[in-house]
Amino acid sequence: MTAVPSDSVGIVVPQHVAFDTPLPLSCGEVLPRHELVYETYGELNAQRSNAILVCHALSGHHHAAGYHDAGDRKPGWWETCIGPGKPLDTNRFFVVSLNNIGGCHGSTGPSSINPDTGRPWGPDFPAITVRDWVNSQAMLADHLGIDTWAAVVGGSLGGMQALQWSIDLPDRIRHVVAIACAPRLSAQNIAFNEIARQAIYSDPCFHDGRYAERGVAPTQGLMLARMVGHVTYQSDDGLREKFGREVASGDLELARDVQFQVESYLHYQGRSFSQRFDANTYLLMTRALDFFDPAREFDDNLVRAFRDARASYLLVSFTTDWRFASERSRELVDALIRARRNVSHADIDAPYGHDAFLLPIPRYIDVFSAYMDRVAIETTEAARR
Amino acid sequence: MTAVPSDSVGIVVPQHVAFDTPLPLSCGEVLPRHELVYETYGELNAQRSNAILVCHALSGHHHAAGYHDAGDRKPGWWETCIGPGKPLDTNRFFVVSLNNIGGCHGSTGPSSINPDTGRPWGPDFPAITVRDWVNSQAMLADHLGIDTWAAVVGGSLGGMQALQWSIDLPDRIRHVVAIACAPRLSAQNIAFNEIARQAIYSDPCFHDGRYAERGVAPTQGLMLARMVGHVTYQSDDGLREKFGREVASGDLELARDVQFQVESYLHYQGRSFSQRFDANTYLLMTRALDFFDPAREFDDNLVRAFRDARASYLLVSFTTDWRFASERSRELVDALIRARRNVSHADIDAPYGHDAFLLPIPRYIDVFSAYMDRVAIETTEAARR
Repeated sequence: MTAVPSDSVGIVVPQHVAFDTPLPLSCGEVLPRHELVYETYGELNAQRSNAILVCHALSGHHHAAGYHDAGDRKPGWWETCIGPGKPLDTNRFFVVSLNNIGGCHGSTGPSSINPDTGRPWGPDFPAITVRDWVNSQAMLADHLGIDTWAAVVGGSLGGMQALQWSIDLPDRIRHVVAIACAPRLSAQNIAFNEIARQAIYSDPCFHDGRYAERGVAPTQGLMLARMVGHVTYQSDDGLREKFGREVASGDLELARDVQFQVESYLHYQGRSFSQRFDANTYLLMTRALDFFDPAREFDDNLVRAFRDARASYLLVSFTTDWRFASERSRELVDALIRARRNVSHADIDAPYGHDAFLLPIPRYIDVFSAYMDRVAIETTEAARR
Repeated sequence: MTAVPSDSVGIVVPQHVAFDTPLPLSCGEVLPRHELVYETYGELNAQRSNAILVCHALSGHHHAAGYHDAGDRKPGWWETCIGPGKPLDTNRFFVVSLNNIGGCHGSTGPSSINPDTGRPWGPDFPAITVRDWVNSQAMLADHLGIDTWAAVVGGSLGGMQALQWSIDLPDRIRHVVAIACAPRLSAQNIAFNEIARQAIYSDPCFHDGRYAERGVAPTQGLMLARMVGHVTYQSDDGLREKFGREVASGDLELARDVQFQVESYLHYQGRSFSQRFDANTYLLMTRALDFFDPAREFDDNLVRAFRDARASYLLVSFTTDWRFASERSRELVDALIRARRNVSHADIDAPYGHDAFLLPIPRYIDVFSAYMDRVAIETTEAARR
């Protein structure tokens, strides 16, 4: 990096907080203490009314924007949307981004040391649900002195956390922005997650999840898992546009040693992911996805799930996202309308599949910015009163 | 089986033929001799004009209809479409179904003994293309005394063989029936095949394909590969209808030890497949799929590929088939029309995804029967002349 772009938050320093208050989990277990790593961008106003929580998706983490040092070539994962003049405008908002519990980027998770045993938790780390994340994020909000989020925002699994916030802690959130999201996973979604998990379990280095104690890692399994995920995050059209049937190496005429470009790409994506992510975290995150279903405790009635919510909602979906298709956002819209919530929905025409939520697609950025502009104005008005 | 259903071909006996004529392959190698296992249903007429060739898909084989003995509970894989009164009506047609070379059900393939080494071919078995299958099937036609097929018929990869017949041996085929087919694989199709292959390669029992010599098999890898395939053969709607989010075992409330029904189903499908199929054959078949692209040698011009074809075509697609979507059949229709071929296309509304071609969907069976009725009438007229 020669110079930080002017629309970037620039150099950021991750922060840590440790909570000694026990966190009761959905599974019945209690996490006696936990640490979170997080970053903040922008300034919290005097009224503490301009705070935005960004929730990450399956493979995300706290580093959503900016750079970690002057030599850092890769910005945070949502640099597209966080920064001066961007939808989550750091001139107006105080943006908080954390690594969730169960994660592998510094927050308490399967790679952390289990205080009871002095060894990594590994597979003994308790099952985590989206609700548990909301509760842990609420502890972070308390720590930062934030009573109410101006908005909780996220794509995919991140959007699910935003929805759960509006159900579980309706007084602490004014807006939900849920992008490329769904009210629950379909059988097909679960099936792909299960294939990813089986790929990890099948790796001889998995050792029932106790690989860290043996100084190994199921990288081959994690690579396969990520390849499965990656294909489902892209659209058929998008892959065709990017790679078509182009050959990376080998002789197609003789059908010999051929590697298509899409194959090399997947190998590269899978391999690089497997070197930076923890397999137990991947298992935990996919399970949290599978289990998310806010309607369940309301007799499968999604309208009732939102009946006590007080937030307003922006839902964004993408036409070629077949993992969480536009139809899934429409289910949410219908339920929210029947639950008498304010809801806006933009279905964005883009060929990039599920991964579109990470990309600078003009109409997406416009809609997101316009909505956040409204949130900012409300925030200022609230501050004036 | 208590009694053979009246619309079944009944008990059938697989037959074997060995060809000592060398078969030159697309890859440049020559198969000095090869065996085929096949079945026939119905009677060849005196004019030898009523023969239908059925080509199998990725995991198929020669046993397409009927039962192998009186205790056999499971009929052939296309019992839905082959038998008295069915689309491939055995009262009118002589139906031939074979296991292709490279297969693992009795025809020469990776599990066969390589005469040069006295050990199983394994990974040394040459790469096979759809064209090679057509050439080997032509040797079977010669053996059976069939100059011209009334029709060559298949679903998925089987449909690709039917298309290739019409391009390579236009004088020996009158009709093509290609169901749930595509003119070539998309990048997404190739990506899923590659994930399946990587699952097999990753199995520690794979031993670079020489597992048979060691008396082991990469069943875990093959199971995973099949799970990937299986999910892509079904539609999101179909899986939702069949399984929804129903739980097979465990406690969803506590997020503990949960197994969703769709997971149990996939495990079962994957496991049972891995016990009856050969991994090297799976690799070979997915590669044949990836490489199929009849337009390639015509400067990627599909119209030119069909310019010398003389057959008439029936294409059938299914609305929820996202592996080989309806759009892919329409590409074929457009090219065939521009190549001045007779082509009929039925897009069947069905929620079963790609696997629909195996199922008794009324409109599909009706359309297929009506088309084959026309083929039968032509056959009789030809016989009268």
